[in-house]
This record gives sequence, C-alpha cells and structure tokens, in this order.
Amino acid sequence: MDVKLLPDERVDMLYNDEVHIIQSKEVFSFSLDAVLLANFAQPRKNGRGLNVDLGAGNGAVSLFMAHKVAGQIVGVEIQERLADMATRSVQMNDLTDKITIINKDMRDIFDDIRPGSADMVVSNPPYFTVDNENTVMHEDEHYAIARHEIKADLDLVTYTAKKLLKNKAHFFMVHRPDRLFEILESLQKNHLAPKRIQFVYPKAGEPANVLLIDAIKDGALTGATILPPIVTHNDDDTYTKAVWDIYEGKSND
Amino acid sequence: MDVKLLPDERVDMLYNDEVHIIQSKEVFSFSLDAVLLANFAQPRKNGRGLNVDLGAGNGAVSLFMAHKVAGQIVGVEIQERLADMATRSVQMNDLTDKITIINKDMRDIFDDIRPGSADMVVSNPPYFTVDNENTVMHEDEHYAIARHEIKADLDLVTYTAKKLLKNKAHFFMVHRPDRLFEILESLQKNHLAPKRIQFVYPKAGEPANVLLIDAIKDGALTGATILPPIVTHNDDDTYTKAVWDIYEGKSND
Repeated sequence: MDVKLLPDERVDMLYNDEVHIIQSKEVFSFSLDAVLLANFAQPRKNGRGLNVDLGAGNGAVSLFMAHKVAGQIVGVEIQERLADMATRSVQMNDLTDKITIINKDMRDIFDDIRPGSADMVVSNPPYFTVDNENTVMHEDEHYAIARHEIKADLDLVTYTAKKLLKNKAHFFMVHRPDRLFEILESLQKNHLAPKRIQFVYPKAGEPANVLLIDAIKDGALTGATILPPIVTHNDDDTYTKAVWDIYEGKSND
Repeated sequence: MDVKLLPDERVDMLYNDEVHIIQSKEVFSFSLDAVLLANFAQPRKNGRGLNVDLGAGNGAVSLFMAHKVAGQIVGVEIQERLADMATRSVQMNDLTDKITIINKDMRDIFDDIRPGSADMVVSNPPYFTVDNENTVMHEDEHYAIARHEIKADLDLVTYTAKKLLKNKAHFFMVHRPDRLFEILESLQKNHLAPKRIQFVYPKAGEPANVLLIDAIKDGALTGATILPPIVTHNDDDTYTKAVWDIYEGKSND
C-alpha cells in the first residue's frame, strides 16, 4: 500500500528488504535494541493469540516480529506522532490484518484489551529515570518521552504487562543492565518470574549495555538461564555477523 | 619447604609452576572456579590489610591470589583433612608468612578475627542446596560438604562476609547463575551492594554456568556493571586462550 511520508521521514528496510519502516531523525528512529527484542521474543507458534507491544514507538518491534507471530499484535503508543508513523508503516507492509496501533497511554489500554487476555507482551520502554543526572535530556520532546521515564516508568510497564498477560504467559523486555536490580524487583513485585536473561555487549572486552529478559506470569521464582552473550560490534565498529544474521532474518530464534 | 604427601595426594602447579598445590582426587581437587575467583578478586594493592577466604578448601583461592595480596590472608576451612592439605600447600610455597589456614566452622571465626576488620573477603562456597533433587550427592563426604550446603549455606556465607568486612570493603564470590536471584537477595539482606557481575560460559553459544560477583559492604544499591563474558572452552573442549592466560598469570587483573 502506498502511504504518505512527511518531509522529515524516510523509509528503512530490514530482513532482506521484506520489512519497511518509516523513520525520522527528527522525531524517532528505532535502535538495534528493537531488533534484538523482536528476535528475542518467542510468540506462540500456533493459534490466534493476542500479543501486545507496550510503548510501540514507530512500530519497530511489532513490525520486526510480525513474521513469527501467528495471532494479532497490538502496539500501544502514547505519542500521536509516533503512533501515526507506526500506523502508516503497518499499512506500507500490508500488515493491517495483523498489527493494530493504538494511540493511548498504557494506563488506559484496558478500555480496549481485557485483563488476562494476552499471550505475550513485549516492551522496549524508556530506559532512563527522569532524575538521572548522568543522562542529558534529549532536546526533542518525542525522543525525551521515548527515552526517559516521563510518561511511563519501569513499574508501570511491568504492572501493565502482568495485568495484560494470561497466567503462565511471557513478558519479553529489553532494558539496560545497570538497572538489573530494579528490573528484577519490579518483575517480582508483579509476579513475573524471570526465566531467561541475555546480556548484549557493544564490543568484545566491554561491559554489557543491553539486557534482554523473559519472564513468566505467576511462574515459580526458581533460577533463570543466562543465555549466551551477544556482541554487537567488531573492533572496527562494524556490526558483527550475529547482528547481521538477526537483521537479515537468519537468526534461528 | 619439603612437606609430606599422603598416598592419594599429588602436587599440581599453576602460574608457570610458581604455585604448587596439593590435590587429591579422593578428597578434594580445586576447580577452574577457584582460579577464576582468584583472578576476579581485587585486593588492596598497598598496606597490610586482612583478607579472608571463607570455605578455603585445599587453599586454592588463597594460594592463587597470594601474589597480588599485600597483606595477610586467612583461609577458613571446616574440614580438617582439607585444612591440613591447605596448610601443607602453604608451607610448600613458602607462604606461611602471608597465609594462615584456620580449621574452623565459619560461625566460630570471630574467636580469631575481629568483626569489621577485613579489607576483603572471598568465597567459593558450596553451590548446591541440600534438597536439590537434580543434583546427585557426591559419595565422598569431603566432596559433599564442599559442594553442598551441608555445613554452610549462602546466607551464612554472605552474613559472615558482611560481619568480617570493614565498611565499603569488597566481597568477591563465585557461584552458579541459576541461583542469581537468591544471591542478590542474600547480599541485599546483608547490606552488600553488588557492583560488578561477570558471567562465565562453558562454550560459545551455551548458557552461563558460573557467576562472579563483587559486592561492597554498605554501598549504595545502584547499578552493577556486567563485565565482558568469559568463555572457558573451545568447541574441541580445550581451554580458551582467556583461561590459559589466567592459569599462566598473564591476565591483567
């Protein structure tokens, strides 16, 4: 389907050009983290389950995981401008039968989705606390809301995920490892038991900068598996083969 | 110094043959985990600080980190047979001025060491809960006590570390990642704030099987750094260069 682009927008392509996504440097561009999360998430392979993307941004995670989702995906995005970009990208990919973007505060999503009805929730939420002095607030408001916990914080995201999910269904989140303890605490508070954790490292020999976590609603708090590390960049700053495989849809997730 | 060996004992050598250690297949042999912990620990480089090794076994961790410790090391080992092996290894390495092995239950160590006096505590404690049905109890009692939480459990180790340490001093522990949540909970309960975590993977593409953690007494519970991964074995089951570098003392710790 042909869709209109605004002056600041461009279209990027992933998965051997099979997925098109509207981007805007001025407003919002997805990051590698969205690609990693879409790859990490494990939707039910059969059935017509409901999958929810909390804080969908320009729809990156929903679009990137659409090929492996049998049921429906609902992307929830509070920012009208981003939700509009996401909606047009869904149209551009002829995925309107599978993906619905709802432009709402996640606090109000239960007007649309019955609690306890989701088979999977994914989220690439804002990473930075508002009072984090080490982080310069991005000047653009769209970026600021996507990156900082201005409209939604960690506890709201995990609480909403818990409330959306069916019993024993999975929540997949990407976040920052320096907030690991808060993440574990927030999940536990909401009866989400971490089962798989994967750390992502920017380069060999450097500390992790991304955390992927898979938690089960009402699962027993036993041990989690620490999955093999992902290293995203070679020493010369190019992407590693592991990342290209994910970008090109070759990863056996 | 010449020391006597029992019939089942042999002497292994590390760090380009600079460290000798008495081993016994029948009673106790140190594992790679002890080597990793000794490498991970960061003792104060100056001064005459006190360093305590809780559950010293045959003295592996104490012996392997002796070269980088400026002060004293006290190894606490409840098993008489292992404490005796450790003591003879200390003699064999002419380290009696630096390392003292105390054959005691760690519950009683405060007869010998004043609370709040240690600059560093390290521990390679028993990994397995006694009721863990998945783990076959090793037939030999010495191994069983070293591997299972028969005489000391996680909470006793972290409590003892906390009580031994000076304010803001470090506790370094090696453990299993499937107990990560219990470890974090136990540390937090004892006001030990994790600062650095390193996951160790048996092979590329496999989940982590060892966890190294560095926590500070009465430190703020902010974020921890997830250090670069260590992979211990190549696909052909030989040790990786990273492990050989540690074994040969080449690692820049």
